[in-house]
Amino acid sequence: MQKFILTTLSAGAILGTILCIPAISTAQAKATKSTVEKVFNAKSYMLDNGLQIVVVENHRAPVITHMIWYRVGAADEPRGKSGIAHFLEHLLFKGQKHKILGDLEPGEFSKIVRSLGGEDNAFTSQDYTAYYQSISSEHLEKVMTMEAGRMRGIDIPLSEFASENKVIQEERRQRTDNDPRAQMAEQMTEALFPNHPYSIPVIGWMHEIQALEWADAKKFYDQYYAPNNAIVIVSGNVKYKEVFEIAKRTYGIIKRADTPVRARTTSPPFISKTSVTLQHDSIKEPQFRRTYRVPSYRQDAQASLTLEVLADIIGGGSTSRLYKALVIDQKLATNISLSYNSAAWNDSTLSIIATPVSVDKIDALQNAIDAQLRKIVIDGITDQELNDTITRMQGDAIYARDSLSGPAMVIGYNLITGATLDAIEYWPQRIRIVTKEQIQNVSKTYLNPDQPYKTPYVEGFLLPISEDKGDVK
Amino acid sequence: MQKFILTTLSAGAILGTILCIPAISTAQAKATKSTVEKVFNAKSYMLDNGLQIVVVENHRAPVITHMIWYRVGAADEPRGKSGIAHFLEHLLFKGQKHKILGDLEPGEFSKIVRSLGGEDNAFTSQDYTAYYQSISSEHLEKVMTMEAGRMRGIDIPLSEFASENKVIQEERRQRTDNDPRAQMAEQMTEALFPNHPYSIPVIGWMHEIQALEWADAKKFYDQYYAPNNAIVIVSGNVKYKEVFEIAKRTYGIIKRADTPVRARTTSPPFISKTSVTLQHDSIKEPQFRRTYRVPSYRQDAQASLTLEVLADIIGGGSTSRLYKALVIDQKLATNISLSYNSAAWNDSTLSIIATPVSVDKIDALQNAIDAQLRKIVIDGITDQELNDTITRMQGDAIYARDSLSGPAMVIGYNLITGATLDAIEYWPQRIRIVTKEQIQNVSKTYLNPDQPYKTPYVEGFLLPISEDKGDVK
Repeated sequence: MQKFILTTLSAGAILGTILCIPAISTAQAKATKSTVEKVFNAKSYMLDNGLQIVVVENHRAPVITHMIWYRVGAADEPRGKSGIAHFLEHLLFKGQKHKILGDLEPGEFSKIVRSLGGEDNAFTSQDYTAYYQSISSEHLEKVMTMEAGRMRGIDIPLSEFASENKVIQEERRQRTDNDPRAQMAEQMTEALFPNHPYSIPVIGWMHEIQALEWADAKKFYDQYYAPNNAIVIVSGNVKYKEVFEIAKRTYGIIKRADTPVRARTTSPPFISKTSVTLQHDSIKEPQFRRTYRVPSYRQDAQASLTLEVLADIIGGGSTSRLYKALVIDQKLATNISLSYNSAAWNDSTLSIIATPVSVDKIDALQNAIDAQLRKIVIDGITDQELNDTITRMQGDAIYARDSLSGPAMVIGYNLITGATLDAIEYWPQRIRIVTKEQIQNVSKTYLNPDQPYKTPYVEGFLLPISEDKGDVK
Repeated sequence: MQKFILTTLSAGAILGTILCIPAISTAQAKATKSTVEKVFNAKSYMLDNGLQIVVVENHRAPVITHMIWYRVGAADEPRGKSGIAHFLEHLLFKGQKHKILGDLEPGEFSKIVRSLGGEDNAFTSQDYTAYYQSISSEHLEKVMTMEAGRMRGIDIPLSEFASENKVIQEERRQRTDNDPRAQMAEQMTEALFPNHPYSIPVIGWMHEIQALEWADAKKFYDQYYAPNNAIVIVSGNVKYKEVFEIAKRTYGIIKRADTPVRARTTSPPFISKTSVTLQHDSIKEPQFRRTYRVPSYRQDAQASLTLEVLADIIGGGSTSRLYKALVIDQKLATNISLSYNSAAWNDSTLSIIATPVSVDKIDALQNAIDAQLRKIVIDGITDQELNDTITRMQGDAIYARDSLSGPAMVIGYNLITGATLDAIEYWPQRIRIVTKEQIQNVSKTYLNPDQPYKTPYVEGFLLPISEDKGDVK
């Protein structure tokens, strides 16, 4: 399950994998005692049409966040149609028609939300697509009505289709093509997921984006947008029973539909090491990355919980092993972090990102990272490290609970990628019982530098154009 | 167009890309004068059902080679069904039924060919699938009848399907999984063709081979095996008019069918360098490879002809620039070659394969290769080099003409990947007019070591397990 990451729902569309969601947690969190209480005390209800409604009450402010999460993302796209899931997410703001739930002109959805003092947006990942509004509590029925209306009622003027295609092309240019760090991430992901749809970027390849047609978008929409393929989450100043009643009156009108079974191709075994080198004139300082392919929560719950704790110990902030050893003691890097993302339908990733002090220190940095990993594989961790880390992670969870939009995000991306509500609610207790032995075993299985190819990973070298790291040709 | 490579049609199925076809040309060829004659003087005829029949008469021996080339290969497979094109090729030996052309039991096709003193086999590539028999001339009608019968009449006992699946699994094990050189080639091709079906090996990924079903094979067969999607080539001791008559009586019975348009996904632009490192305990000497992605004949005829000449000058045998510089003079490698394959429906490849004298000389070897390429980019080639190379290549063509099965192979893989018959016939003349300027320009465009990313390439390092080339992590 994904660690509780707090999120400020931003005005710009959040795009890419879950890793793109800005984490603002650890630093602000205070340590708290372990507890057997549920984190969110969420209430869940299933409509007859298969739509799950989850409510987290929080009466600190007179506002709510309303989100709908669809179990469809970029990794469900047909071959050659990359970007269609994200494009469709944009198109859903461009007009809808429904004889009971009402009609909306292009742009009218967001205009109404803003006129009521709220804000709305959406984001797409490999595994899900989500739409949300943050608004005063009394407008919940209004936004639910509009959101239900666009679940099956998309109706877009063709002119909007063409102009929005230009918008997403520009989005790709700005976010990826003009950002060598994003390019590097894209190239590494491609290499890390051969024969698997995660190899294709969420926003799509430019040449495929340009060739998308309205029929592609409509077909994708008709296949996947259905109540039985979605989860609605409402957090904030509401009574859960009222939310269920409103949901029945709005979403309840929409009929269940047959949605495709997720049939994704899988990667062959890894038998070689791949590295990617990208030189760019806008890069002044080199960057080194290593991304491992590891189990997601859905694939292996226990390994995933253990990896969450292990990731925090190795690379979570300035008290982590990697930071202390490589930045403070050995001065090989000016920054280094390691993070693990548990929320994926298929394999997850664990990423090391470092800023070497200079290009000629990259080899030494790689060796030093391996040395730190080897230490854990051989000697394990200390009781003190384990306790400190878990206490801090539990504190983050408590902090997440008190945020307004945080609970909807945390519950959303975990539920939609296969966690149960109970697993989310009791995450602090489950994290607490992770043992030193489990951590050492997981490090042996997934991060052992002396087992080449057993753990698939890809390395990336982002270099200034002037300096060639001679040995990485 | 693909250089004239002579081939001994072997008993084992020829699998993989066209590169797998053994070349036995250059050494045996004698230089001959340029000529305006056609190389093969082939005769072509189109049946009403769209099947093209090409005949090359050669009366030196009382035998013929009969081949049928289908315009379908591994790159046309549905996603997740890798290996189905090759599997189907195997299955076509496992039984057929046709009310006019006759029925055959599993294995009976080959048994009949052998009982008549001939041999038969088949091979699959990314772009085509071909079946052939070499046999006494008088049996042409018999093999044409059988070959026509299996074009639409596949009829296989389910038990054969299961056992043949085991056979192709074993084939993958022997040819790829137990051969680190083949593994390396597979990994590099995967990296060189992101988002393109050439990234997937012709034989398929093992886990996908194991999951193939009869319905997959039958659907693929029904879609692609049709007279209008094939070319028949007969070379040897025949009169072309008789061949056309026999073809009408046999293949002419089969109805035209709607075959799918080839719609292949394409790669995004290359913006980074990828390298693949594979260590294996069976490797005693390191190997270095670099594979470029360049135009095929179908994509750019002039560039392709020029690349053929250039490839021969840089890396064709022991008189080539690379061999002389790196093996003889600098002693950095014990062997090095560069080859270009022009016959592909989409992008082609140009490959350098070298055996460095030791692991610690790989960096120097890479730099020395770049230095040789830079020399051609800056200074071009000499008149002498150009003339010698073209004369030798023309000699190969004459030699190919006099072989028995060679003409059918050369015409087959060039026609099926988009060349015209005239382009094949006048290849020696077209090669002769390639200029020094064209060669220098092509080297600038495709092999310039000082234009990073402009020419996509992938490097591979095959290393002994004991020695880590420390800087290629």
